Amino acid sequence: MISFVDYNENSDFSIHNIPFGVAVFNKEYIAVCTRIGNMVVDLATLYDYGFLDGIEGLVENVFEAYTLNEFIELGKPVTTAVRTKIQELFLEGSLLSNDEKSIADCFFELDQVKMLMPVHVPNYTDFYSSIEHATNVGIMFRDPANALLPNWKHLPVGYHGRASSIVVSGTEIHRPKGQMKPADADKPVFGPCKQLDFELEMAFIVNRNTEMGESISTAEAEDAIFGMVLFNDWSARDIQSWEYVPLGPFLAKNFGSSVSPWVVTLEALEPFRTASPKQDPEVLDYLKFDGDKNFDINLEVSLKPENGDENVICNSNFKYMYWNMAQQLAHHTVNGCNVEVGDMYASGTISGKDEQSYGSMLELTWRGTKPFTLSNGEERKFIKDNDTVIMRGYAQKDGVRVGFGEVSGKILPAK
Amino acid sequence: MISFVDYNENSDFSIHNIPFGVAVFNKEYIAVCTRIGNMVVDLATLYDYGFLDGIEGLVENVFEAYTLNEFIELGKPVTTAVRTKIQELFLEGSLLSNDEKSIADCFFELDQVKMLMPVHVPNYTDFYSSIEHATNVGIMFRDPANALLPNWKHLPVGYHGRASSIVVSGTEIHRPKGQMKPADADKPVFGPCKQLDFELEMAFIVNRNTEMGESISTAEAEDAIFGMVLFNDWSARDIQSWEYVPLGPFLAKNFGSSVSPWVVTLEALEPFRTASPKQDPEVLDYLKFDGDKNFDINLEVSLKPENGDENVICNSNFKYMYWNMAQQLAHHTVNGCNVEVGDMYASGTISGKDEQSYGSMLELTWRGTKPFTLSNGEERKFIKDNDTVIMRGYAQKDGVRVGFGEVSGKILPAK
Repeated sequence: MISFVDYNENSDFSIHNIPFGVAVFNKEYIAVCTRIGNMVVDLATLYDYGFLDGIEGLVENVFEAYTLNEFIELGKPVTTAVRTKIQELFLEGSLLSNDEKSIADCFFELDQVKMLMPVHVPNYTDFYSSIEHATNVGIMFRDPANALLPNWKHLPVGYHGRASSIVVSGTEIHRPKGQMKPADADKPVFGPCKQLDFELEMAFIVNRNTEMGESISTAEAEDAIFGMVLFNDWSARDIQSWEYVPLGPFLAKNFGSSVSPWVVTLEALEPFRTASPKQDPEVLDYLKFDGDKNFDINLEVSLKPENGDENVICNSNFKYMYWNMAQQLAHHTVNGCNVEVGDMYASGTISGKDEQSYGSMLELTWRGTKPFTLSNGEERKFIKDNDTVIMRGYAQKDGVRVGFGEVSGKILPAK
Repeated sequence: MISFVDYNENSDFSIHNIPFGVAVFNKEYIAVCTRIGNMVVDLATLYDYGFLDGIEGLVENVFEAYTLNEFIELGKPVTTAVRTKIQELFLEGSLLSNDEKSIADCFFELDQVKMLMPVHVPNYTDFYSSIEHATNVGIMFRDPANALLPNWKHLPVGYHGRASSIVVSGTEIHRPKGQMKPADADKPVFGPCKQLDFELEMAFIVNRNTEMGESISTAEAEDAIFGMVLFNDWSARDIQSWEYVPLGPFLAKNFGSSVSPWVVTLEALEPFRTASPKQDPEVLDYLKFDGDKNFDINLEVSLKPENGDENVICNSNFKYMYWNMAQQLAHHTVNGCNVEVGDMYASGTISGKDEQSYGSMLELTWRGTKPFTLSNGEERKFIKDNDTVIMRGYAQKDGVRVGFGEVSGKILPAK
């Protein structure tokens, strides 16, 4: 497939992608959009001009919206048909390719738009599904001989997070303050977090509302997943270690999470399916699944100090996940918990086997005991004020590249 | 104060209360309402008829709504003025008391209306703030000699819950299914929960949106709290004990929580303020507070088996809370976590000192080891299918009674 839009061969936003997002265009006009190469395309105007006519189930005004929620609630048959239609319109020789006025009205350079949170998130859950990450954390905080807890291989461990503080890439985040208990102190102290961390994650977004009491099976799950984003689950390790027993992480996580602005559909990721790690012991029936349910997505984290260049500090891959998205959603709903359109379900930190693939500073510097040196000579154990953390992700196979762009966030000093 | 509306002297909904809710009236018309005695009063029509004229900041159509969110977002000066105005209108000799047409149009018998969820809940947090409950759980599940964990007296422990499955009183709930690991088994099994429980809680509702990075101090907190409801945090104990380490309760809680339909304002609870239990050790500065921040609210739980009468199984009181609402909200936001209008913050199980005041079956039957007998001769360790759990709460002092009515929920068999 060759597009009439020029883009670099390493672009995440090739003709094979067609992701969805929400942008502020010139003059405060907001609409649902897609992207090809470095062009952002206003879908509301494209719809108005009749280019998306004839798609069964597509509702008017669904692109004149501040979020993707209404669009994705239309369900797979409609959203997939829209994506395919857009893909056709972007091909060389298409009706659109010869319509200069429509192109001028619908296509915008990246620097002409500002991306917004792609969805309204009614509920957010964070899983803990990387065996390498769970093992590393278990070794550091609990018992090296029994790093994985007894339940870990039987169910995808997860917990509820804070939906209100999920923000789009580019949003600056203040270093959180809170209670910490230094190892040598007999009581807790209050102040700015000293062990600020990122967590390299991905999240999937659900396209439907279910009723309480209803479950989604592993076979049904992918039909309920619209697409995925990159997810940075900022974490305050010193606050976390003091607060998290027995009810889990709370203030250590809820001060902010950052997501990439472009939702890449499961359809775009289809060519990059891959087998899951073998699950042993065998899982219970409701967690069994057929086919390849993991995805081969290269992930990278960079840290950019205030007066320095970007330093790549982690290379990982989404394919390492022990528990896949279908299992996560089946587990989450097996008790009758209802889901809502726009819900986000994050993977948990995605670490690989080797030290350079660990998806958090906690693991990369082994709880601060092995600091690393940046290209400007500075040392890091954890994130410092005015550091920017950038995560990127893309899949590539047989000359086809589909990527997520990036999620970037700068840490400001505590207020 | 004497109202022109007759009601029983034991009514929770005296002239001193004036709570807010949302009802479906005849013919599917939905509006914000209040209640006096057994009459539900349509505030949208009362507003249309001009009875609420002259209140500064009161916006048109705010009562023609499916939730209280828009109304409570107007903030205390407005919501308090509205409540005071309604109270005046309900007095003997008021303009309204002599207007038969308006009374006929605005006042409805209880059985003519159906109460809805009073608010849309963007985020839900559950605290763990009763020292008696935390101690009981610690004795049963961990170490009797060190029942309270080291952090418990230093911060109000809490965790994020599931907002999507909070439902209004009267909604039936299916028994959840899930993974459990029987003590004598070497691997988990799947099936309907066998240790289904209630948790007697109350929750407060926030009236504002804050920015990320902003905090609410203990002094500011009560101005940010619109009012309170009764809260039943249904819990599956066998699912919980298998899943909750290390990231907290998840499927054991998120299949459903039930709330009472009437939001009682903090202003109505003003006469019932009382001192908190002494906090020792002294708390950190951001958790210190002035004045009486607890409230003397009698709480009661009844269990009604399918073919039997209600049995009162617990009498407790909200005043037992070790951590008060101002401390909870100050702690929740001290790290910059933003809050949203309609957010619900639940207390955690409210247990008292004596065995009859324990706020869960877990504690009342001491993990099933001390079953109790109902009036129909049946025994209970945990909740059985078709049992109904009813929680009630009221404050009473110097002849003034302000109550919450009830939150009731029936457990249906697993789907």
